[in-house]
Order: sequence, then structure tokens, then C-alpha cells
Amino acid sequence: MQIKNIVRILGLLVALLSLTMLVPAMISLIYRDGGGVSFLMSFVFCLITGLICWYPFRNEKGELKAREGFLIVVLFWTVLASFSAVPLLLLESPNLSIADAFFESFSGLTTTGATILTKIDGLPHAVLWYRQQLQWLGGMGIIVLAVAILPILGVGGMQLYRAETPGPVKDSKMTPRIADTARHLWIIYVTLTVACALSYWAAGMSLFDAICHSFSTIAIGGFSTHDASMGYFNSPLINFICVLFLLIAGVNFALHFAVVKSRSLRNYFYDPEFKVFLAIQFSLTLICFVVLLISGVAESGFEAFDLALFQAVSIGSTAGFATTSFADWPTLLPVLLIFASFVGGCAGSTGGGMKVVRVILLYLQGLRELNKLVHPKAIFTIKLGNKALPNRVVEAIWGFFSAYAAVFVICMLLLLAAGMDDISAFTAVAACLNNLGPGLGAVAANFADINDFSKWVLIIAMLFGRLEIFTLLVLFTPTFWRS
Amino acid sequence: MQIKNIVRILGLLVALLSLTMLVPAMISLIYRDGGGVSFLMSFVFCLITGLICWYPFRNEKGELKAREGFLIVVLFWTVLASFSAVPLLLLESPNLSIADAFFESFSGLTTTGATILTKIDGLPHAVLWYRQQLQWLGGMGIIVLAVAILPILGVGGMQLYRAETPGPVKDSKMTPRIADTARHLWIIYVTLTVACALSYWAAGMSLFDAICHSFSTIAIGGFSTHDASMGYFNSPLINFICVLFLLIAGVNFALHFAVVKSRSLRNYFYDPEFKVFLAIQFSLTLICFVVLLISGVAESGFEAFDLALFQAVSIGSTAGFATTSFADWPTLLPVLLIFASFVGGCAGSTGGGMKVVRVILLYLQGLRELNKLVHPKAIFTIKLGNKALPNRVVEAIWGFFSAYAAVFVICMLLLLAAGMDDISAFTAVAACLNNLGPGLGAVAANFADINDFSKWVLIIAMLFGRLEIFTLLVLFTPTFWRS
Ligand SMILES: [K+]
Ligand SMILES: [K+]
Repeated sequence: MQIKNIVRILGLLVALLSLTMLVPAMISLIYRDGGGVSFLMSFVFCLITGLICWYPFRNEKGELKAREGFLIVVLFWTVLASFSAVPLLLLESPNLSIADAFFESFSGLTTTGATILTKIDGLPHAVLWYRQQLQWLGGMGIIVLAVAILPILGVGGMQLYRAETPGPVKDSKMTPRIADTARHLWIIYVTLTVACALSYWAAGMSLFDAICHSFSTIAIGGFSTHDASMGYFNSPLINFICVLFLLIAGVNFALHFAVVKSRSLRNYFYDPEFKVFLAIQFSLTLICFVVLLISGVAESGFEAFDLALFQAVSIGSTAGFATTSFADWPTLLPVLLIFASFVGGCAGSTGGGMKVVRVILLYLQGLRELNKLVHPKAIFTIKLGNKALPNRVVEAIWGFFSAYAAVFVICMLLLLAAGMDDISAFTAVAACLNNLGPGLGAVAANFADINDFSKWVLIIAMLFGRLEIFTLLVLFTPTFWRS
Repeated sequence: MQIKNIVRILGLLVALLSLTMLVPAMISLIYRDGGGVSFLMSFVFCLITGLICWYPFRNEKGELKAREGFLIVVLFWTVLASFSAVPLLLLESPNLSIADAFFESFSGLTTTGATILTKIDGLPHAVLWYRQQLQWLGGMGIIVLAVAILPILGVGGMQLYRAETPGPVKDSKMTPRIADTARHLWIIYVTLTVACALSYWAAGMSLFDAICHSFSTIAIGGFSTHDASMGYFNSPLINFICVLFLLIAGVNFALHFAVVKSRSLRNYFYDPEFKVFLAIQFSLTLICFVVLLISGVAESGFEAFDLALFQAVSIGSTAGFATTSFADWPTLLPVLLIFASFVGGCAGSTGGGMKVVRVILLYLQGLRELNKLVHPKAIFTIKLGNKALPNRVVEAIWGFFSAYAAVFVICMLLLLAAGMDDISAFTAVAACLNNLGPGLGAVAANFADINDFSKWVLIIAMLFGRLEIFTLLVLFTPTFWRS
């Protein structure tokens, strides 16, 4: 294990992170909201700490192996999210506990979007900006993780994408390939964010709100600058823009990249995951629309459509924005949408959940099992598009699903042991593990009123979700640490 | 497809079933409770119907193939449970709807033990006996299904047991082997039932209650002749006897058979599933005991132990008896026990759930996935005891788990759509799919107050659980029906 090299990389990352804290400090200058001091202090603290870690090992530049990749990915998220909590801890108002500050920063950076804050409208602009920026940076990290790193590490069947991603394919050489992939993906990511911000602005948001919400939309994060979330703007047009960009951000960024490179939209319609993702969002919208009309929750067809489309895609893509308190809809709908968040977005998107492609493969694998029962000696191959699936991927995806379920059950039992009621515990874990955001029951509006132990459990759930379970779980096996 | 042969077999089975209806008719004679008429009428009806189906095809004795095995197993349960509903339909008091009668008879024969009846204490003795007898017959069927038939069909990884079960192994010849295995298993089953009944009787139950409860104990069914279930007797000794026989009935009957054949108890302690099953029940008891003491629900250590041991094993083994309304315990415990019912008993026992051996294998497979991440090129074999597992079994078990989860989610969404609240829907499906019996919320005491649509959904859930998902699911694939 190249510990020195890993410390060097993390030190560099923390130093880079410190630079991002200058932005909310500047925002504070513009709006004179008095929130800038803690960001300046955090900037200095993170910069110095980062440089102290980097400097002694600045010449340790050995090529990283896959095994070190797991450790770096896990540390990347935990270390950066921990340092991101510093400015929140230094704030005088709101005065956050350690658990609260960590919950908010992990929720931000993992793009979960669950919050312990109430009265968000009254927060300093610097804090509002910082939360949105955390999600945006997290979204960037996720895409690189999902498109460039997980396929190499082979986590949860993602070796499936190994050949498709741009860059050289030699497994043991991670750095140059990741840098190359990252550059391309970030251009797309930034372009989409700009387009989203401009659309929001044109549709009537203030420039500040437009930029802030474009951050959390493209990151499928779900943080908002208002307590009422998207409902604050009360604008079907803004809702529609949000849905549109969520659908775009919920698609594999490697697919967007392929479309850009080939200058042809065709790629989308050859991609089975893209089609199933859209079909799921469409079906959820349809079911919500019908039930809202029948049950009389919505007063007109247009209102029902506006509510149904927005909440279905917002929860189905795991963004977690709200235009209404959908937890109070007829029970079928909130539970259906929470279940849909287990499916989540496409692999390689900023969405959470288990990812659409895995659910497709689980379905195809189940079908193959049935066929094998009828014809035990026949050989059935699973095809995705027109690509046959190696057995290794099949097993990895089944293993992923079981591990996901196991982590879910354990986290839920821990919350129950800490005194939470059953529905709140179930949906709180779903909201965090799927990087969704809001739950039902006691965690429908925010996570302010749950105890500290539960917050730490949920922080771990967010990490498990974002790191696709296995990346984190593998660190707990003896095999990993045996040289 | 040998339709004629299948009709012959089912006709014979229905005719045999009709004979069992003479027993409650005789019970009615003894107790003069006026409930005998409907059983006599049903006897005649079932006997004639059975013979009509059997007679024209009595010489159709072709050897059955595996594919026909699936159909017969499914029809065995659906046809017998449907005919078993006839006497309940004919009753004048209670006057049951079709949905209620079918729910009760399917719940009985699948040993689920969920009931739509209230005021059970006031029912005629004939009806009481009949319900218990249904569970006992169902338990017999399950053991033969699990030990002799599923391994041949290869459902859900159960080909694992193919070589271990007694009798000839040639896969395509089902009949002689099943008959031989069945004979041995039934002797053990009857012996255990007699021992259980005598123990209950000696501990203070009336002879009628002792026999009735021995039926539902060995079948891990959970029906009782009293509204208060085992709580009616208010006897720690009876509770302990019940726990003891539930633990015995929760073990693979092929293992019991091996012990009897070799006259050595050693076999038990070489069996990993047996050890894990006991460890799970012990852990559940311990957690319940501690929480009951801490939370002050139990007043003394002995009371806490009595309550904890009984409810932990009753729910953990999927029997579903009650000595107290455990649904009102601190939320952690009922949810933990409901989760434990997903694990259930050992394969080849009368218990429900996914079966302990599958959960062990899911765990080992998950571990292997983690090891493979660290050493992608190494080959890891999964061993159960000292037997290496073929890849085919690994895949089948993962497929089983996914299908189990899928059926669960779909059934739960259907109940929610029918207007049930979330906790009731979640636990109602768990109670029926795991063949457990009681749920929480609106279905904690009984299933009387849910609507007919929900009852039919739950009947199907019971069948899916009892038929280990795939046996039923395979009938819905086009491959199955293509010649
Ligand atoms: K989110
Ligand atoms: K049961």
C-alpha cells in the first residue's frame, strides 16, 4: 500500500477544496450577509492542512494499483466531506453540532440532499451558495467515479463499461486514463449546468437562485435555497425545466460523450438503459397523474400533470426536489416513488439508487433462471443491446443487489434501535442509501429532529450508496489488508 | 405435456383429500357441535369430483418429466387448497365469503396461519379441527416438496440437495423416488406430531387442544383453537414445549432422516445450516430479552425470558403463534422479528421464508465477490460444510433472492393501491410470502378487515412463498409452454 502517495494525493485534493471555499466568501462580499468569515477561515485551515500533507511526499508519484484505488475513492469522499464540514461548524448562526455539520456536508457532497437545516430562506447567501456548490462538486466527482474509476475497479458489475469509456484501457494504469476521461466529462457537465442556469434565469428565477438550482439539478442533488424547494417559485415552466435537466443528468454521461463525439443523437436510441430510464419516469408520472386525478388531490388535469410529472421525475431520478408535500398523497404514491428511487438514474449519471442498468440485468438474469429451469442443459446468454454479458458481470450484479439489501436492513434496524418509528426508519435509510434526500414520516420535510446516532448511521448509508456499496465494503475484508 | 396423466393424478389427490374431511365430521359427532354436515357434503362432493377426473384416465401412467413436475406441484397446492375451501364455504356459521373461505384454506394448507376468523373460541370443534388438520397435511406436502421434488426440479438452488436425499438419483424418473422418500419422511413427521401432542397433553392441555396444536406446531403453521393463541394456556411449560418442537420442525427433515438412519446425533452438528438456524433463534431471543428488560415491558427476568424465547422462535421459525401482542413491543423488536421471518426455517423443514441455507450462501457469495474485487484473477470456491458449490447453484440462489424481492414489492404495491396503509401492507406481504401468519398494524391480530382484492393478492403471495417463487413463476414464461 503506497500510503505516502495516498496522503500526497489527499493533501492536494484538500488544498484544491480550500480554493472552492473562496467562492462563498466572495458571495458574502457581494450580499454583505456577514457569513464570509467562516469560509475564509476554513479556506486557510484547509489550504494549510492540505499543503502540510502534500509537501513531505510531493515526489511520491508511483503508479497506483486497483487495490489502492478503492482506498483513495473511499478517502476521497470521507476526507473531502469532512473538511467540507469545517465552514459549517464555524458558522455562528445557525450554530450546528458536529453531527449536523457532517450530515449536511456529506449529504451535499454525496448529492443526497437530505438536510438538517430549517428556515433555509433566512440563511446567509454564502451558506446557501456553499451547500449548492457542494452538490455540484459532488456530482462532478460521481461522474468521474462512475464512468472512469468503478469500471476499472470492477465494482458491482461496472466492468461492463470498461471497454466503452474513452481513454486507454490498461487496467493497472489508472491516472492518465482518469484524467483524460474526466476532462471530457467535465466539459459536458459544465455546459449542461450553464444551460440549466440560463433556462432557470430566463424562466423567472433570480440569477442567484438560477445558478444555485442549476448546481443541484445537474448534480441530481436536491438542495434548494428555499424551504419550499421548487414549490417556492410556483411556476410550471420552472418545474418543466427542472424535469428536463433532471432527465438529461440522469443519463450516463459516457453516453452524452458518445453523442457529442459522433454528433448524432442516434446513440441515445440504441442504448437500452436510456430507453428503460425514460420508460420508468414516464410510467411513474402516469400512475401519479391517474391517482391524483381519481383521488381528487389535484383540482384540474393540468395541476395533476404538473404535480405528477415533477414529483415522479424528482423522486424517480433521486433528485428529491419538491413542489408539494407528496408524503401526504395517497399512500401508494409516496411508497411507489420511494421504491422507484431504489432503481434511480442510469449508471454513470449523477443519479443515485442501484442504477437502471443493474435492474435491467437483474430482470434479464431472473428470466434466464426461469428458462434454465425449463431447459436445464441449454445455455442462455444475456444480452444488453447486442452485447453478450460475461458471467462475471452477472454474478457481480447479483452480489451488488444482495449487499444493497443487507446494508439497507442493517441501517434500518440501527435506526429502529435508536428509537425511530418504522416508516421513518425505512424511508430515511432509502432516502440516504439511494442518495435521494427526503423520506416520509418524521423525515419528510428535513432530518433536523432525529438523534445524533441516527444521523451518523445515515451519513454512513449515504457513503455506502454513493460508493456503490462494494467500494466501501471491500475495505472491511481481511483480504484487502493482507499485502 | 401429459394433460390426461396430470388430470388423473389430481383426481386421485382430490379423492384422497375427500377422505380427510371425514375426520372433522367424526369430531362433530363426538362433540355434537352441529358442524358436521358441511364436512360430509364436502366429502361426497370432493370424492365424486375426484373420481370423475380420475376414472377416464386411470390407465394413463406415463413417466412424468421435470417440466410436468412444475405444473403438478403448482396444481397440487392450488387444486387441493381450492377443494379444501368447500367445507368452509358450506358452513352456516360463520358464514364465509368466497374470498374468506379461500384465504383460510390456502393459509391453512400453505401453513401460513394468517386467519380471517375472529371469535375462534366459539367455533364448532369440527371447524377448529379442520383448520389444524389442513396445516398438518400442508406441512407433510411441504416436506415432500422440499426434500424430494424441488431438488429434482432445481428450484432456487435446491439442486444442492440432489445427491443427499435418499432414493435413486436418476433425474427424469420422479415417481418411485418421491414415493420412497415420502414414506420415510412421513414416519418421522407422524412420530414428531405424536410426541408433541403427548407433551402438550402432559403439560395440561385438553386432549383436543393438544392434538390440534401439535398439528400446527410440527407444520410450523400457527393456527390455534383459541383467539389468544398459545397465550390462552398461560403456561411457560407449554410455551417451552412449543419452542422445542418448533426448533425441531424448523430443521431439514432429510437431516432428521440421516440421524435416524445412522443412529447418531453427530449429523446435526456437522450441518452448517442447523447451527446457523439455532444461532439465529438464539440471537433473536437474546435481543428481545434485553430490550424487553431495558424498556420495562416485562416485569421480571423470567417473564422477559418466557416472552422473548417464545415470540422470537415463533416468529423467527415462521410459526406465528403468540403469547402476547408483540406488535406493541418497542418498534425495533416486531420489525426485527418480521425481518427474521424472511430467513425462516431450514430448507426441507416446514418453516417458511427464504430458508437459512440460502441466506448462508448469499452471505458466502457476497464475501466471494468482495475477495474477487481485491484479487480479480484468483478463483474462489464457495464451500458449505466441506462441499464445494457449483456455479449453477450460486446463480440460482441469487436469482431466487431477486425474484423474492420483486414479488414482495409488487404484492406490496398492489395492497397499497387497494388502500392499505404502508406498515400493514409491508407486514401483510411479509407474513404471507414468508408463510409466517401475523403481521403488524391492521393485520396484527387477523386479516378479517382487509378488502377482498387484498385477500386474493395475499393468497397468491402465500402460494409464491410456499412454492419457492420459481415453481410458480416458471409457469408464466413462454418457454415453459413451448413444447
Ligand atoms: K438527491
Ligand atoms: K406459519
